[in-house]
Amino acid sequence: MFDFTFHNPTKIIFGADKESLIGSELTAAGITKVLLVYGRNSVVKSGLLDRVLANLTASGIGCTQFGGVDSNPVLSHTREGVALAKRDQVEAILAVGGGSVLDEAKAIAVGALSDKDVWQFFVGKEVERALPVFTVLTLAATGSEMNGNSVVTNAETKQKYNIASPHVYPKVSILNPELTHSVPLNYTAYSAVDAIAHVLEGYFTKEPGTHLQDRLVEGIIKTVIETTDLIMAEPSHAKARASFMWTATLALNGLTPAGIGEYSFPNHMIEHAMSAIYNIPHGAGLSIVLPAWMKWYEAKNPSQFARFAKEIFGLDSGKAGIAALEQWFVTIKSPVRLAEAEIPATDIEKIAENAEGLAKQWGIGGLYPKETIAEILRLAV
Amino acid sequence: MFDFTFHNPTKIIFGADKESLIGSELTAAGITKVLLVYGRNSVVKSGLLDRVLANLTASGIGCTQFGGVDSNPVLSHTREGVALAKRDQVEAILAVGGGSVLDEAKAIAVGALSDKDVWQFFVGKEVERALPVFTVLTLAATGSEMNGNSVVTNAETKQKYNIASPHVYPKVSILNPELTHSVPLNYTAYSAVDAIAHVLEGYFTKEPGTHLQDRLVEGIIKTVIETTDLIMAEPSHAKARASFMWTATLALNGLTPAGIGEYSFPNHMIEHAMSAIYNIPHGAGLSIVLPAWMKWYEAKNPSQFARFAKEIFGLDSGKAGIAALEQWFVTIKSPVRLAEAEIPATDIEKIAENAEGLAKQWGIGGLYPKETIAEILRLAV
Repeated sequence: MFDFTFHNPTKIIFGADKESLIGSELTAAGITKVLLVYGRNSVVKSGLLDRVLANLTASGIGCTQFGGVDSNPVLSHTREGVALAKRDQVEAILAVGGGSVLDEAKAIAVGALSDKDVWQFFVGKEVERALPVFTVLTLAATGSEMNGNSVVTNAETKQKYNIASPHVYPKVSILNPELTHSVPLNYTAYSAVDAIAHVLEGYFTKEPGTHLQDRLVEGIIKTVIETTDLIMAEPSHAKARASFMWTATLALNGLTPAGIGEYSFPNHMIEHAMSAIYNIPHGAGLSIVLPAWMKWYEAKNPSQFARFAKEIFGLDSGKAGIAALEQWFVTIKSPVRLAEAEIPATDIEKIAENAEGLAKQWGIGGLYPKETIAEILRLAV
Repeated sequence: MFDFTFHNPTKIIFGADKESLIGSELTAAGITKVLLVYGRNSVVKSGLLDRVLANLTASGIGCTQFGGVDSNPVLSHTREGVALAKRDQVEAILAVGGGSVLDEAKAIAVGALSDKDVWQFFVGKEVERALPVFTVLTLAATGSEMNGNSVVTNAETKQKYNIASPHVYPKVSILNPELTHSVPLNYTAYSAVDAIAHVLEGYFTKEPGTHLQDRLVEGIIKTVIETTDLIMAEPSHAKARASFMWTATLALNGLTPAGIGEYSFPNHMIEHAMSAIYNIPHGAGLSIVLPAWMKWYEAKNPSQFARFAKEIFGLDSGKAGIAALEQWFVTIKSPVRLAEAEIPATDIEKIAENAEGLAKQWGIGGLYPKETIAEILRLAV
């Protein structure tokens, strides 16, 4: 165990129809006007947007609508949101959507209270305050509903960078698992990969010997695999969708890394570089990167890979555990090779170059020069 | 999965010497005057009290000292604390000690802002507000440092009752595992039992099928057993003490029951009745009650007991799992029979009578009439 601070003040309201509480939660927080941030078609078609708007109206809460968030949210759109939030002097940001919508909403919350361009907070400026963020989640994957992270892509510079700040933890996040029943199976698979990657990064890159956290991670992974398999067989499996949703939240809410000391996010680093250039779903990119990185990294931490193989798959060698995870990604139809995402092997140097910038920003540049990143990516050819 | 709300806003600061941050945390919260609640000798002898007082002085925070909390905190002393808090118009309660000190501090925080007698909040009156509570923890066991519970005994009526309220979650809890190195091994054993009991109550009494929560519970229990064994062999085992401390916190911070639906606390109910009468350590009482209750309850949920046996001890039957847990309690020298705590079997009816009152208050009176409670206790003769 290492020193840590754990402080996750987000209130989670979980269950069927709980989005009907959003108005009363905003009112309880003294909010009278929000910027409602959402994505493209799904929340309109499903009727969720109308239900939320009606709920706000019934609670007497003013609302500026701001749709059109991309699945990899971009800086230019975020800046538009910041301008709108300032123009209408909203008091909070309400995100209705998946992790991308939540991430952009958080960035808008930061930008709305600053005279600086919001991108400055992604490239080093410390966040000192933000408007309160409220969320209604429609996709279980990123954990953004219960953490202080926001990832946005600067399309001009091809940088997919992030804010990490206690000021952008959502005040309230509403998780209605029924809203996720209609998530297509390919995106469900990418979400499963994302949740698994979130916990595996720390699990493999920390120092050994923090068994409680190992067990929490293993419990999360086993549950993700179990519930994803159930969902693949029956997409509206209510119990599996619900358990999957809460598990994905716990996979990146600060619980599993508390006390593990130093660790790093090499897979996210490489994947962010990939999806900054190719606009592939984050989870799809991760299922390509993760097995490759595991093959490359296994010799650096063999006992933990052996533990992983045994605990998750009942197998006797680290290499067999990696193969089993990769095979499971194949089974749920998430890509495991660059070609499956139409990324040519000749682009590996370009991705590695982009990832190296992130490696430097995240303080692991020494471990991951571009030559090493390219070597890892060649394992995914 | 069932509907739930999870909201645990306590900030945990974990690590060596972190008690030196208490002054700055209070200052950051705008606090200028506290009631410092503590127990008897240990925090004085260890020098911790002096260090905390010096830290408060250095931060310019006024302080009224209020020592003498019992290991089963009593109402009469709590009332004195309430009177002091009101007299000196303190703005927060600072608890320095173990779970008992924290529990009494929370009760004082409630009483200090009310015109009613504080006991009313233990027998049904809803808590609407409380002074903010800050804690420096010296004993890992009860989880009080990160939850909204407070248990106090009314010595006159022999009622050991509790408050459960979102208003008494500590604002900040400082966990320095080094402060627990000197905890005697018998109390360490009782603490281990307490943490295990906290997670097993829900594990066995909920409906089946919430596997994520089952896995979290199993991870917690395995870690408690592993770290306790290490501490028994080497009382100042730094990693084990640290891991044990954080594990005990997670065992009762709302994480494991989130989403499991209805469950109950029969073992705590019976033990509270025992220690209301006999003033035995809570964990010692639990290690007597828990195996007895498990033997009685096993037939009502055989698959979960079989799961417990397999996951925790690698055994093939529920009964063998119960025997293994009981044997482990014996190994760590926590009592498993009434006689070991000098409780005569002839008192069983008296305890059952007392517990029945709590069963009614906790809404499980129908399941636990006094005859049933007596039947369970006879399994501990």
